[in-house]
Parts: sequence; C-alpha cells; structure tokens
Amino acid sequence: MKLPSYEDVLLAASRLRGIAHTTPVLSSSWFNAQLGAQVFFKCENFQRIGAFKFRGGYNALAALPPEQRQRGVVAFSSGNHAQAVALAAQLLGIPAVIIMPNTAPATKKAATLGYGAKVVEYDRLTEDREQIAQQWVHNTGMTLIPPFADAQVIAGQGTAAKELFDEVGGLDELYVPLGGGGLLSGALLSAQALSPDCRVYGVEPETGNDAQQSLAQNKIVHIEPPRSIADGALTQALAPITFQLIQRYGAGVVTVQDAELIQMLRFFAQRMKIVVEPTGCLGAAAVWNQGKQLQGKRVGVIISGGNIDLTTFSQLLAS
Amino acid sequence: MKLPSYEDVLLAASRLRGIAHTTPVLSSSWFNAQLGAQVFFKCENFQRIGAFKFRGGYNALAALPPEQRQRGVVAFSSGNHAQAVALAAQLLGIPAVIIMPNTAPATKKAATLGYGAKVVEYDRLTEDREQIAQQWVHNTGMTLIPPFADAQVIAGQGTAAKELFDEVGGLDELYVPLGGGGLLSGALLSAQALSPDCRVYGVEPETGNDAQQSLAQNKIVHIEPPRSIADGALTQALAPITFQLIQRYGAGVVTVQDAELIQMLRFFAQRMKIVVEPTGCLGAAAVWNQGKQLQGKRVGVIISGGNIDLTTFSQLLAS
Repeated sequence: MKLPSYEDVLLAASRLRGIAHTTPVLSSSWFNAQLGAQVFFKCENFQRIGAFKFRGGYNALAALPPEQRQRGVVAFSSGNHAQAVALAAQLLGIPAVIIMPNTAPATKKAATLGYGAKVVEYDRLTEDREQIAQQWVHNTGMTLIPPFADAQVIAGQGTAAKELFDEVGGLDELYVPLGGGGLLSGALLSAQALSPDCRVYGVEPETGNDAQQSLAQNKIVHIEPPRSIADGALTQALAPITFQLIQRYGAGVVTVQDAELIQMLRFFAQRMKIVVEPTGCLGAAAVWNQGKQLQGKRVGVIISGGNIDLTTFSQLLAS
Repeated sequence: MKLPSYEDVLLAASRLRGIAHTTPVLSSSWFNAQLGAQVFFKCENFQRIGAFKFRGGYNALAALPPEQRQRGVVAFSSGNHAQAVALAAQLLGIPAVIIMPNTAPATKKAATLGYGAKVVEYDRLTEDREQIAQQWVHNTGMTLIPPFADAQVIAGQGTAAKELFDEVGGLDELYVPLGGGGLLSGALLSAQALSPDCRVYGVEPETGNDAQQSLAQNKIVHIEPPRSIADGALTQALAPITFQLIQRYGAGVVTVQDAELIQMLRFFAQRMKIVVEPTGCLGAAAVWNQGKQLQGKRVGVIISGGNIDLTTFSQLLAS
C-alpha cells in the first residue's frame, strides 16, 4: 500500500485553491484564560458543505484521470462525505451516485439531489451498502470514493491542518476528531512537515474507542457499533492505511464523553457564536479535559463540521 | 453640534488596531443563489464582547484626555454597550461604573463585574437611570459614555463598515441594524468615503420604526416603548446627532417583522453555522424581503452581534 506524503497534501492544496474555503481560525479569550493556554480553533464548520469532508472528496475526484472521471464516481454515506462527493462531482462535471439508507433525513437526501447526484436508497436492515456500491462499480465502471481509506482523500483532509499551521505557525499540540482516521492522518502529514515537534492527538468518543484499542494492541481492532452523539465518529475500525499512518507518525489517542461534547457545543454557541456538530466538539472537549496541563502551550483544535439539524441542536442547547 | 467625519473613523480605526478584532466577512452560496445577488455578511457577532459596540465604546474611552481618564467613566445599559464600556475601561486602565436595572440577567451582571467595572443597580419602576448617571457624573467628575449619541462612539462604530469595504470593495447596497443610529451613522461615514454610490439602509423592527417616522416627518419622533425580539433596537427615538447624520447622508429606512428575524436566525444557524442575536438579523431579513429586486447586485449586511442566552436561542430555533 502506498501511503500519502506531505507532497500529496501540497498537491491537494493546489487543487483546492479558490475552490475550498480557507476557513477562519478563531480564538476565545475566555477559553484561553481558563486553561492558561493559547488555543486556535480551525473552523471547518465554515467549509463548503459545512465540514472538512469537502477537501478530501474534491481532491480525490480532481485526481482522477479523464477516463475515470467520465465513467463517474460512487460513494456510500448518510453524512458529510455524501455531500462532499456530490458537490465535488457537480463542480467537476462528473456523474455521481450516492448510496444512502432509506432512513436518511429528507433534508440530506434533498441536499444531495440538489448537487445533481443520483441517490440510490437501500434498506439498512436487509442490504449491505458496500455490496451495493461494489455492484455499481462492477456494472458501470464507476470509481468508488471511500470516506477515509484512500490516499487522495487523506491528502485532501491534510490541507485543513496545513492551513492552520500556515496561519498561526508552530504548535505544541494539535487535537483532531477521530472516526475512520482520514482527518487525523492528513493532519499528521502536515504537522510532520510544518511543526515537527507538535504532538498530534486523535479524539474519539469513549464508547467508540476502536483506534485507542488498536494502538494499544498494535493491530486494527473492530468494535461493536458504538453509541454516541458524535455521529461522525462511529466507525467500528480504522482502515489499514489510516492505522499505518497513525502508527508511523506516533499520534496519541484520547477519548471524551458525550456530556463533555454537549458542554463544548454550548460553549461554542454561547461564547464563540458558532454552531458545531457534536463530532466537531471532540477536539475542544479533549483540550478542556487537559485543564491546566496545557498551561503556557500553543494548542490547535480542528472543528470538523457544523452539520446538525436544528431540532437536535436546540435540544442539546437546552439540555 | 460637531458631526463626526470619515477622518474620525480613520482615527478610530488606528486606535482599534490590534485591539478590536477584524471580524470575518462570510457568504452563503445558498443565500446568494436564492436572491441572484452577492451578499457579504460582516460578522460583528465575532467582535470582542460579541457585538460591534466594543468599537465605539473603546474609541470613546481611548479619545479621552488623561485627566478625564483618571476620573473614570459611567455608562447605563443592560446590554452590549455595558460590556463594551466595561471591557474598554479595563483594557485602558480607566475606572468604570455601569448602571444596570436590578432585573438584568445575572450573567450580564457577572460579565460586567468580570471586566472589573463597578455595577450600580437601580429599580426600573421607581428610578430613572439617566438621572442616576448624571448624579455620578456630578458627584465624581466621571465622563458619561452614551450608547450612540456621541461623535467618538459613532466614529468607532464606523470602523465596522470601513473594514467591510476594505475587504470586499464597493457595494451597491448596505443594510445595517438601526436602534439609536450609532452603527448606521458610522456606516454612512465609511460608505460615503469608500463606496459613494452605495445606498445605505437602516433596518428597524416594524413595531419600533421611530427612525422611519422621523425621516418621514423631518423631525425626531418619539414612540412608545416598542415590543420586538430585536432587543438591541428598542430605542424610542434617535438622538439629534444620529438623526442629522442619517438625514445628511440620505440613508433609507426599512422595517422587518419578528417572524422574519426568527427565519434569519434559523438560516444563520443552519446554513452559515453562526449564532446571531435577533437584532443582528435585521439586515439579513431586510435583504431577504427584497427578493429578486437585488438580482445582480453586490450587497453588504452588518450582523451587529451574537449575544443571546442559550435558553432563548434554543426556543427560537425550535419555534
């Protein structure tokens, strides 16, 4: 397996220039004062489609040779990756098929259709989405764009951390939401090139700590479907490519609880005036848990996205 | 009465450099597509204390000569102006007294105390806050910092529109929340200097349209205390200084309804991932109401602030 390098991140950055947003880096003087640290929040909730996933999706599609572009792409996801691939395909004029559970919220289906993608629904209880996707690949010659197990997807996600380092300079520590490991893997590539002494942490929900277990056991551990409000980090296992990158670059893995995510979601709304989805709160919650251990340090946090339906958001704010 | 000029805005900008945030300008491709226009949102909800008021408050305090600084400042407000003066006073080492109703939310009182200001409470039903403020001025030699009827306050607020024009260039129209007229007056000074063909509109809640009536009658009209969720725009009358500026520079005034503010508050949370207080939604609601009339135009909107308690915010999102 060929692992991506920082060169691939640079190539992704050049493809994304003028297409992805250079998202703002925000700070909270209150948060900094509580910890005695300087914390920089890289706000991918302001990215196109509301999440960092656009970076990887677009980069993977833009990297395809013409004949593959023409045949189109297929992705399975009920979340941000679906929107990312659909929008990227629209921008690049590539046909796209998105495989979604028939239970996915109507708004998500509508958004995906709005980007001009074809939506194929499946029954979560009786059908296997990967199998359906493989069938499309087999029948049509379309290219499957995986949500994280792909060198170009990882390279694209790496541009988020690259922009953060470019804007604020070197950091002592960087905290990144960790599901399948695409964002973390990309961040490791950029950190190693731009701030080699920076310690990089992936942050998982406590109930879904497959990566933490995998590092401890030195092999990819599969877990039961976890329950957490961090719905973007419910993957049951890392992929070989992300596991290798996380091991090679020595990322740490820490976990946080749902109650801590809600506390941060409320902090983001109240103090920072931003809407962050629960998964996007993982990094901030881990930093908050460190407390005074981060005193005097320069710390980065990637806020992965802000896609949360208003009913859920309203309930979490009131809870 | 000496009216402020754009020179005063430039002076304010130099005082605020490195102290106020240069707030981000955000766009929504969805909003743009609905209107066929290019709309630039100047996000003062990301300003220090969560609202543009910091600009004017700080500028007014920084403009005081040393002997006045030493004697201190007094302000009456239960809202963003109180926080603005308190924080500015702390940064400049000036003693500050803030006069607040004893019914003000505990969080606002705590925040003001947190900035090191002295809080003087009064009974809204039996006492007059202006009288109490004048007493402090008389007894202590402190300087009163009014929320809008002040040349330096207006010049400070003008830096918000200045930054917007500096960043995006000339505009066809600019929409600004309108309460006492400080932000609008400042915006007029900057528009006239930086984008002289730009038509500038103040936006009031329909129930609190004193400025609209004042322009129509060519004199300052006082209205009964209005009821609206736009709690930063419930002033009953313009001040002579803001009325004169609004007249001189030919601002338009339009009104919007509370239901339209809620619709925009939800749009900002859902699509733009930002928390905007109802008053901050005035400009966007007016633009939305224009519909296709803005087709092909470059339009600016100042989002005045994002200070809303989470309970109210949660209720408005769910409504």
